[in-house]
Amino acid sequence: MNCDQRFEKQIGFVLEIDKLKRVLRQTWLLDSSRRENDAEHSWHLAVMALVLSEYASEKSVDLPKVLKMLLIHDVVEIDAGDTFAYDELGATDKEEREALAAERLFGMLPSDQAADFRDLWEEFEARRSCEARFANALDRLQPILHNYKTQGKAWKKHGISAEQVIARNQTMAGGAPRLWAFAQRIIESAVKEGVLEDDAT
Amino acid sequence: MNCDQRFEKQIGFVLEIDKLKRVLRQTWLLDSSRRENDAEHSWHLAVMALVLSEYASEKSVDLPKVLKMLLIHDVVEIDAGDTFAYDELGATDKEEREALAAERLFGMLPSDQAADFRDLWEEFEARRSCEARFANALDRLQPILHNYKTQGKAWKKHGISAEQVIARNQTMAGGAPRLWAFAQRIIESAVKEGVLEDDAT
Repeated sequence: MNCDQRFEKQIGFVLEIDKLKRVLRQTWLLDSSRRENDAEHSWHLAVMALVLSEYASEKSVDLPKVLKMLLIHDVVEIDAGDTFAYDELGATDKEEREALAAERLFGMLPSDQAADFRDLWEEFEARRSCEARFANALDRLQPILHNYKTQGKAWKKHGISAEQVIARNQTMAGGAPRLWAFAQRIIESAVKEGVLEDDAT
Repeated sequence: MNCDQRFEKQIGFVLEIDKLKRVLRQTWLLDSSRRENDAEHSWHLAVMALVLSEYASEKSVDLPKVLKMLLIHDVVEIDAGDTFAYDELGATDKEEREALAAERLFGMLPSDQAADFRDLWEEFEARRSCEARFANALDRLQPILHNYKTQGKAWKKHGISAEQVIARNQTMAGGAPRLWAFAQRIIESAVKEGVLEDDAT
């Protein structure tokens, strides 16, 4: 591949990922005006990593790697769609759908970059490093914050209970114990305020 | 300030910047479905930095610093609004509006982080380093790409000419000469295809 072909592939990828701005999540913006999309969500997490990196479980966490991971962690959803965190049916074939998506989307890049992005994404998904565990913790904290601040909009719509939120998000403890303690306090407040049900409905 | 107060300030900032998702730019998504917002735009630029860093004018460019800059470069627009690149009237008080916004928004963070973000943002605005010049080049390339791919939607709406696009964006050459050469070819194609006017209307 010559340098012009390399450049063309890179620009092709840059144009393709614009589609992530149209993949909607279940989470709402804080003013409840609309649902959040994957691109702005990824931006939010990356800024959270900048601001909250001191709460990563390991002091040696490689922040640039965390940023890279967060920036590309949802790109596969261009093809695979957003699977709601509590969607057990959607979860059954999520892995397969996302692996195919990773193949096609990262495969648009020159092979060195394709391999790099693919590895990073897999590391994130498998929570295989302190960077991946910290990035995952942020990816879980943000919807908890948004749900709480929007009076449980997505939780209520899908009949999610506090038990489910705890079960789903307790892995946060491995990546950012201080943030998990904070998330637990939010969940408690949400239950007290009637924003989140105590038992599965 | 104790550690709880520090954490509270950080979370306050994380919640505040959600508003960037509601600041609309003049640029349209590639499928022309709607205008782009500042948060998803910032994400797009950060991924572009990951993919295109080899085209920075200096090989020694500090990519993590570029990412940080791009992630926060538009945060001031939460208060100051988006000033269209070709809006000469809006440009007259842009600096003052944005300086006030930086004061308030970055000032929500603990002082060490506030100073860090403020410095980075000022460096970006002044194009004071090779990182700032590369980040700026990406910030200019992306709307050119989007305008061209949406048949000049924003250019036509505001009666922008090729001369204006060139005058506004030629600083790209200092940050990423290869990307500026590419942008110039796009501008030429846009003129040939009637997507961009040759003279100011």
